[in-house]
Amino acid sequence: MLNKKYADKLRKLMKKNNIDAFIIGPSDDLNYLTGFNVHVCERLQAFFFLADGNYFHISPKMYLEEAEKNLGPDTDFFVWEDSENVLDIIKTAYQKYLLSGKTIAINNAIRGIDLIDISNRLPGEYVNGHEILELLRIRKDKEEIEKMQKAAHLADEAVEAAIKYIAPGMTEKDIKEKIMEFFEQKGTCLSFTPIVASGPNSSMPHYCDDSRVIQEKDIIIMDLGCQYESYCSDITRTVFVGGINAEEEKVYNTVLAANKAGEAKVGIGVSAEEVDIAAREVIVKAGYGEYFLTRTGHGIGVSVHEAPYIRTGNKQILEEGMAFSVEPGIYIKDKFGVRIEDIVVVAEYGANVLNKCSKEITIIK
Amino acid sequence: MLNKKYADKLRKLMKKNNIDAFIIGPSDDLNYLTGFNVHVCERLQAFFFLADGNYFHISPKMYLEEAEKNLGPDTDFFVWEDSENVLDIIKTAYQKYLLSGKTIAINNAIRGIDLIDISNRLPGEYVNGHEILELLRIRKDKEEIEKMQKAAHLADEAVEAAIKYIAPGMTEKDIKEKIMEFFEQKGTCLSFTPIVASGPNSSMPHYCDDSRVIQEKDIIIMDLGCQYESYCSDITRTVFVGGINAEEEKVYNTVLAANKAGEAKVGIGVSAEEVDIAAREVIVKAGYGEYFLTRTGHGIGVSVHEAPYIRTGNKQILEEGMAFSVEPGIYIKDKFGVRIEDIVVVAEYGANVLNKCSKEITIIK
Repeated sequence: MLNKKYADKLRKLMKKNNIDAFIIGPSDDLNYLTGFNVHVCERLQAFFFLADGNYFHISPKMYLEEAEKNLGPDTDFFVWEDSENVLDIIKTAYQKYLLSGKTIAINNAIRGIDLIDISNRLPGEYVNGHEILELLRIRKDKEEIEKMQKAAHLADEAVEAAIKYIAPGMTEKDIKEKIMEFFEQKGTCLSFTPIVASGPNSSMPHYCDDSRVIQEKDIIIMDLGCQYESYCSDITRTVFVGGINAEEEKVYNTVLAANKAGEAKVGIGVSAEEVDIAAREVIVKAGYGEYFLTRTGHGIGVSVHEAPYIRTGNKQILEEGMAFSVEPGIYIKDKFGVRIEDIVVVAEYGANVLNKCSKEITIIK
Repeated sequence: MLNKKYADKLRKLMKKNNIDAFIIGPSDDLNYLTGFNVHVCERLQAFFFLADGNYFHISPKMYLEEAEKNLGPDTDFFVWEDSENVLDIIKTAYQKYLLSGKTIAINNAIRGIDLIDISNRLPGEYVNGHEILELLRIRKDKEEIEKMQKAAHLADEAVEAAIKYIAPGMTEKDIKEKIMEFFEQKGTCLSFTPIVASGPNSSMPHYCDDSRVIQEKDIIIMDLGCQYESYCSDITRTVFVGGINAEEEKVYNTVLAANKAGEAKVGIGVSAEEVDIAAREVIVKAGYGEYFLTRTGHGIGVSVHEAPYIRTGNKQILEEGMAFSVEPGIYIKDKFGVRIEDIVVVAEYGANVLNKCSKEITIIK
């Protein structure tokens, strides 16, 4: 069902930005606004939310039963069958709701090919509405922060369970599955597929294979998270198997100092880029600037990546309740990488660090 | 690395359709053309393939190592960092390759919001290239069919394993996990998350919850598939727990007859819609027409859904080597549903049905 509070807020943002209608495809945005967590497939389905208070849903016939259950009887449904052209159905809806020629924003779940087909057939000014939808949920309230704290706590526990489990001879996949099993047993979903990158694989920030066998003296990056009542966690810890060499120790301590410097910078009125710069400076000063390949962090909430983005160039001012990761890293190609990530929420007193799991050097014996 | 055979074929299709360049985001299309099976995230990354023989890749810095490994040294890389605006980087590439004002097709993995940003900044005629990319791989050769046969065989075995496993008292999720475990043990990936819809849930063609407990006298739809060397399988069987009533038997036999009628219609020179109509007529004649909510089938290959789509209105003529599902169903809201699905390949003699698993009424005792 449409969440009245969020709907009112979105309408205000739309009026402020001269947007007449929003087309929202299956996404976290739709889930946040309506609680409808819909199956994605190539058949176009979209929720149209109008600044004038109306809303309707374009639904493939096969998904109608689920859509009705989730969106409720106040929603106007326009249903299309596989034998029909969805553009004809959308046209009918445009006629009923007088959308022709209007300013229509799309969210990030409308495919470019569908946008081309729609805009060729149905005149209007189509604009990128992604930032507006991000603004809608950028500040988390007390209840949302509690959910994120619970998700973070589960992620902390998963890291600790994995550390106890890791031993040379097992594969990255074994560790990944251990983490997934942990969340499964806790009755939570993943917020993303865990990353377990060992040895030289750790130099790829988003490594996604998992077949390597863990060796003695390996470094292992574990990046994982779950959902608690739709709110995501995301944590990274880097651990060592059977020992650590001097270079690894230096890199680890540099990343840890950067993580702490970023977190220390967080506060109301500080800009996103200042947090990035605070973390980055530590790494640059240690001589590893060229190996810090990413932004320092990303916002998090019902999406695992959302605003605010903690990157140089982002002048956005942090406000109370904004939640994001602080995850500096050093990635030395063909050698190794280190990343340390926590989720923080901007609080009156600075950063409320949701992850409590140890960041000290951990050597698995 | 770019597959020379497919690249040549795509260039010919582009010239025929007056397309100067293709923008291909992370997708099955990209995997098919280059073997690069890339991690998807909100950072824009895209492979540009030009009709003049050039190609280049827009890569976030953090994915560059993987991109270089997969796309090889002949690829021209344009790298952007999180602190930069990707549009500036794309502009540089447009200038080097003289793309301004050209006709540029996008694939289904370019988001609408990115297309809006690109087309606002970089003039050109942006067109929907999805059908062209589908055409590229619509006819499977002998080697591809062998892979699909192997994937189908594994899916058959998974159904048989699940049937042996099912018992009242377990949840839909238990069955889903059994199927996933089976594929895991065989060393294959899923082509999609299995659907296990029991009792009244079976009336939703793409049910995606899994918490219901299996009861005596339940009907269970299982829809599942795996990948064999990137080629997908997809099978549905509907089974009965502890018995079947007269209405269920009638519906089952109707769907089975429709499945067989559809498969019997398949042949070189027949249109896609004729196959749909052949299956649909059986269901309509039995009085269940309004409960057949979907098209009869979808093409399959490296994507689990691709052309040709087996639906009324699709005049596409079937050619040797086209592969698709034949999956009629009857979905009676709040009561139950039945679906029976095989994958077939168009052969000289008619339909080469890849799934061999029994379609007769199966009652689990």
